[in-house]
Amino acid sequence: MIGNSRHLLGLDGMRAEDISLILDAAAGMKEISRRKIKKVPTLRGKTVVNLFFEPSTRTRTSFEIAAKRLSSDAVNFTAAASSTAKGETLVDTARNIEAMAPDVVVIRHRFSGAPMMLADRLNCCVVNAGDGCHQHPTQGLLDLFTVRERKGELSGLKVVIAGDIAHSRVARSDICGFAAMGAHVVVTGPPTMIPPGIESLGTRVAGSFEQALEGADVVIMLRIQLERQSGPLIPTLREYARFFSLTPGRLALASEDALVMHPGPINRGVEISSEIADGSRSVILEQVENGVAVRMAVLYLLCGGSDEVPD
Amino acid sequence: MIGNSRHLLGLDGMRAEDISLILDAAAGMKEISRRKIKKVPTLRGKTVVNLFFEPSTRTRTSFEIAAKRLSSDAVNFTAAASSTAKGETLVDTARNIEAMAPDVVVIRHRFSGAPMMLADRLNCCVVNAGDGCHQHPTQGLLDLFTVRERKGELSGLKVVIAGDIAHSRVARSDICGFAAMGAHVVVTGPPTMIPPGIESLGTRVAGSFEQALEGADVVIMLRIQLERQSGPLIPTLREYARFFSLTPGRLALASEDALVMHPGPINRGVEISSEIADGSRSVILEQVENGVAVRMAVLYLLCGGSDEVPD
Amino acid sequence: MIGNSRHLLGLDGMRAEDISLILDAAAGMKEISRRKIKKVPTLRGKTVVNLFFEPSTRTRTSFEIAAKRLSSDAVNFTAAASSTAKGETLVDTARNIEAMAPDVVVIRHRFSGAPMMLADRLNCCVVNAGDGCHQHPTQGLLDLFTVRERKGELSGLKVVIAGDIAHSRVARSDICGFAAMGAHVVVTGPPTMIPPGIESLGTRVAGSFEQALEGADVVIMLRIQLERQSGPLIPTLREYARFFSLTPGRLALASEDALVMHPGPINRGVEISSEIADGSRSVILEQVENGVAVRMAVLYLLCGGSDEVPD
Repeated sequence: MIGNSRHLLGLDGMRAEDISLILDAAAGMKEISRRKIKKVPTLRGKTVVNLFFEPSTRTRTSFEIAAKRLSSDAVNFTAAASSTAKGETLVDTARNIEAMAPDVVVIRHRFSGAPMMLADRLNCCVVNAGDGCHQHPTQGLLDLFTVRERKGELSGLKVVIAGDIAHSRVARSDICGFAAMGAHVVVTGPPTMIPPGIESLGTRVAGSFEQALEGADVVIMLRIQLERQSGPLIPTLREYARFFSLTPGRLALASEDALVMHPGPINRGVEISSEIADGSRSVILEQVENGVAVRMAVLYLLCGGSDEVPD
Repeated sequence: MIGNSRHLLGLDGMRAEDISLILDAAAGMKEISRRKIKKVPTLRGKTVVNLFFEPSTRTRTSFEIAAKRLSSDAVNFTAAASSTAKGETLVDTARNIEAMAPDVVVIRHRFSGAPMMLADRLNCCVVNAGDGCHQHPTQGLLDLFTVRERKGELSGLKVVIAGDIAHSRVARSDICGFAAMGAHVVVTGPPTMIPPGIESLGTRVAGSFEQALEGADVVIMLRIQLERQSGPLIPTLREYARFFSLTPGRLALASEDALVMHPGPINRGVEISSEIADGSRSVILEQVENGVAVRMAVLYLLCGGSDEVPD
Repeated sequence: MIGNSRHLLGLDGMRAEDISLILDAAAGMKEISRRKIKKVPTLRGKTVVNLFFEPSTRTRTSFEIAAKRLSSDAVNFTAAASSTAKGETLVDTARNIEAMAPDVVVIRHRFSGAPMMLADRLNCCVVNAGDGCHQHPTQGLLDLFTVRERKGELSGLKVVIAGDIAHSRVARSDICGFAAMGAHVVVTGPPTMIPPGIESLGTRVAGSFEQALEGADVVIMLRIQLERQSGPLIPTLREYARFFSLTPGRLALASEDALVMHPGPINRGVEISSEIADGSRSVILEQVENGVAVRMAVLYLLCGGSDEVPD
């Protein structure tokens, strides 16, 4: 259980104490991945199904490794070759998977709300691994974990999220998560990429990237989805990079120990310069490491674990 | 061993006692999947290779979960990216897999007889997971298991199979299996979908869907393979549905405690109405659950298990 | 460690004693795959990631089975659906994988040198599973193992490699490996398929296939890559087969107990006749069996194993 839920669908509305519970559990999990024998028997005999309707090797691999380090059986069910290609509804596919008695179904789907719809209908635990432009809660949690580990606490920090806010499930999870923990979240991006009403999630919109960066403690750069957003939202990548690329000059506006984050995969020279991505302020690869830990924690808690960390 | 064979290629010619042995073992296996720790060490150190030449996430996942719950190592070998794409013969591919010392090779192939050809040439156990229009024995067995569990026994039941009998490996396995167990099997469908001579498997052809349904104890609806059968066999889906969809009105002709079954994935509103598929008579999801149990039983027996169920 | 390296990138420059160490370890591993319980706990808690940027079910399956028989967690990361399709660089993809704390990354890539580039940048062990036309060291090692097991020793043997030497990473690994162990390696093929300067790896070029075969102890036939080499290098397959197919007539020129080898998948009737491929001299399937053993040995040694074989 996480809070009073057996699912993890989003960070919207999640209480700070529930978030802290996950982050505390993740700290213990991170230590496991650094051992010589990176495996605990905690979830032996549990079945975790990765039900991915969008291609994603990276997130799927992170969940699979997390599941295996806890000794559960991880099974990948990808949509390409699946029954949905034969006209089956999403709910029917999910009910079929459920009939095979998984403990957790991890789902990625291009439709916002798909994981919530399944959670309403399935008896097993559902983890949202990214749904449309809605939420990507384990990404949000790993971002929170990374910042908390580096900064000690989250409350009072200035967190900037820059890029295509409108189409980013990472942005929505980050805004909700950081706001819940008492951070001040500022978003910035081309006007076409800032959705109206985003303030209601607990953020404010900066007048410019430069204004947003002033005194920032954390700078989260979003990926420009080259494969999705063609023409309409931005004139050219070159122009986007001119105004919204995180360069050394711009980063100088932030706090001098500001962290630079990115959910990956990065577009070098577009939203982030290589110098910054590979620089001393970047914690991008720590995010990936922490992703495994956070996913271990989520699987563990949903399968009945307490906040005590397993040996 | 199942009977005197180390393979499971089809239900044609299988003796009732051998079928019963599998169903008895499956009953114990089903209980394992309902435990908190859904795993037994029975097949530790065995290797099960899923050699799938047709896309099938559902059946493959069922076998994979079955293999893992018995602690064997499950390896997926899918044809898309495989050497057969490079011009290798099926037998050479299979011999190569065999050289890696699997204990069981689970094969799905679009050619009828492919599993039998491999069984003749390989030293490991071969399980047919569906070959062309020929047989799909684990589907047949899970259907038998589901009915036996619900009805107590199979002998004397009236079992209707409706739809595209000609192209259905499920139908062929069901006919052979139910007939062997003493049930009365009746098939029905558009005349273009009833293969001449089907009676020789142990069934009779009804004059109409309605006649078939009269007093039926079990109604197995087959999937219209939208992705395969275009034009020729049926005029339109709408017309097919008009005559062969299982609706509440038609189901009323069957015995009042008749079971409704479907191998999935279902086409809602085509061969089965949503009201029936989701209704109290439907055991469609039980079939899926039982599929894992039956596959565990088959893997277990072929790898040397006795009829004693493991702890 | 293998020699003084925590990677296996190629057989070029590898010392005979390091090769022997691997082959000795592989002999013990082969015995494990022949046990009833084909699994040892040696690498429990280790993570092996198969990072395949080229389709290859066969080699990937061999590595996956090897990893699982040693009780490590094997995770497949294939390029098709991966972030590299989203414009990520190879190094960024690899660093992301590394951040998930694998112990070994097994990589196949179409670019020669890709594994070496990663080895320079990653902290985990890197195994080259085939890079462009460069090296395929585990294939070379399994060839050495197969010959050593059959012939007792490698020194002094005449080893012929026939076919498209220029585009074969197998040929390069075999030449280096057999030469290091003191065998006399002779290559042969159409002039367009013999790269200038190949002698520098430790081989000589025969005047004709027939000359090469005279007194040969081992004949390694390379696969004509039907899917890659169109027109330019050879006029037609028929003509290729006329001059370079291994037929009974040609094999008679070799030593009477000559071994016939092929890395597979074979093109029957092209580079090798079915009579030879299935004949008593052929050790093609032994090569596949030995491939699992050699890969177990490599994973074991890189993860810290000594030359003592695990129980």
